[in-house]
Amino acid sequence: MTILLHDLVGADPARPFSPHCWKVAMALAHKGLPFACNSVTFTQVPLIEDGASRTVPVIRDGSRVVADSFLIAAYLDETYPDRPSLFGGEGGEAMARFVEAWSQSVLHAGLNMIVLEEIANLLSPEDQAYFRPSREARLGMTFGEVAERRAAEIAGFSARLTPLRMMLRSQPFIGGASPLFCDYIVFGALQWARITSSAKILEAGDPVTDWFERCLDLHDGLGRSVPAAA
Amino acid sequence: MTILLHDLVGADPARPFSPHCWKVAMALAHKGLPFACNSVTFTQVPLIEDGASRTVPVIRDGSRVVADSFLIAAYLDETYPDRPSLFGGEGGEAMARFVEAWSQSVLHAGLNMIVLEEIANLLSPEDQAYFRPSREARLGMTFGEVAERRAAEIAGFSARLTPLRMMLRSQPFIGGASPLFCDYIVFGALQWARITSSAKILEAGDPVTDWFERCLDLHDGLGRSVPAAA
Repeated sequence: MTILLHDLVGADPARPFSPHCWKVAMALAHKGLPFACNSVTFTQVPLIEDGASRTVPVIRDGSRVVADSFLIAAYLDETYPDRPSLFGGEGGEAMARFVEAWSQSVLHAGLNMIVLEEIANLLSPEDQAYFRPSREARLGMTFGEVAERRAAEIAGFSARLTPLRMMLRSQPFIGGASPLFCDYIVFGALQWARITSSAKILEAGDPVTDWFERCLDLHDGLGRSVPAAA
Repeated sequence: MTILLHDLVGADPARPFSPHCWKVAMALAHKGLPFACNSVTFTQVPLIEDGASRTVPVIRDGSRVVADSFLIAAYLDETYPDRPSLFGGEGGEAMARFVEAWSQSVLHAGLNMIVLEEIANLLSPEDQAYFRPSREARLGMTFGEVAERRAAEIAGFSARLTPLRMMLRSQPFIGGASPLFCDYIVFGALQWARITSSAKILEAGDPVTDWFERCLDLHDGLGRSVPAAA
């Protein structure tokens, strides 16, 4: 049965951009599970699956509804154990939590400053009316204050990637010889920036750029199915 | 048969302090393998096991000599598969490389500035004559320049631990419900500081401090067998 992924979009339903939804799309493709996307906007999120979650991603798999990207990945591995693993064992599932915490606290912390205004501009007026005050409250900064920091955050972003860059000397993916959910966690962050922002945050010749390109190639180029922001 | 761990010390042979040797001591205890330590100083390292390695840790297990903390952990899991795993599967072994890269590029980068002078003072005069110029060359800074940065590095160290702190909301160890080699990687960095430095880098009430105390309790309190620096 086809799994339904409730996926976040702005005014253009053909450009899903949520980092956490991208993690799940890549995870579903990794498992080889057919899935379809239901595009929702920020203000529609509370209405999906009878209010199952305040945030996306949410999936419906038959009668099961699961929210939260990490919990969805764990659900998929548990429910479909005969398909390629997303964690590569219990240790990998635990350590993926560390990769998630690093991505969230280091990469997203920088990217939030870089992509914020451009995301707002992708949204419908109704979503913008929700997004702007909610993000100002969450960040504790006005959009103007974020804009003032943007150039410095772009300049400093490469340094945030140092651990990934160093690790890539050992192996081609965070998951080892081939990708695991931990790769999709970090991919989600950079794909979010690729789709929403004109900022150039990855440079040619950087091993991280090469890794990101490998991720874009995965699963018949799923990540490339949405073109980069102009 | 008892495994021999060549372990780095300063002038006091009872205070091994190398972060990488601590990773291996914890890994050997985790596997339940009896081991003995051969204390070596910096200038003795090139002489051990007929010059097998320029760095410690090095272990001898019967006729096998293995160098490099990560390769030693992998060797132990491969050679003693019936004992508790250090990686929890292939995914965990791959992701431990990411934890290693994070620890090295984020934690060690800060700790180097904090513990450098105190380590030099722990060494014999002969070792100091090697250590001071070699570390100035590696860091691209004089000891005086490092000393000027020390207070700021101590003040900023807690922020470097943010990903670990965030992850500890999900589980008690980086390895999940119980520790794996990934925990010993990070433990090694903080144990290095605990043994060599008077700097207070962990605060009471921080989940990271609680995790570090749990690590010190492991394996019959192996980590506490060397008292903290005064």
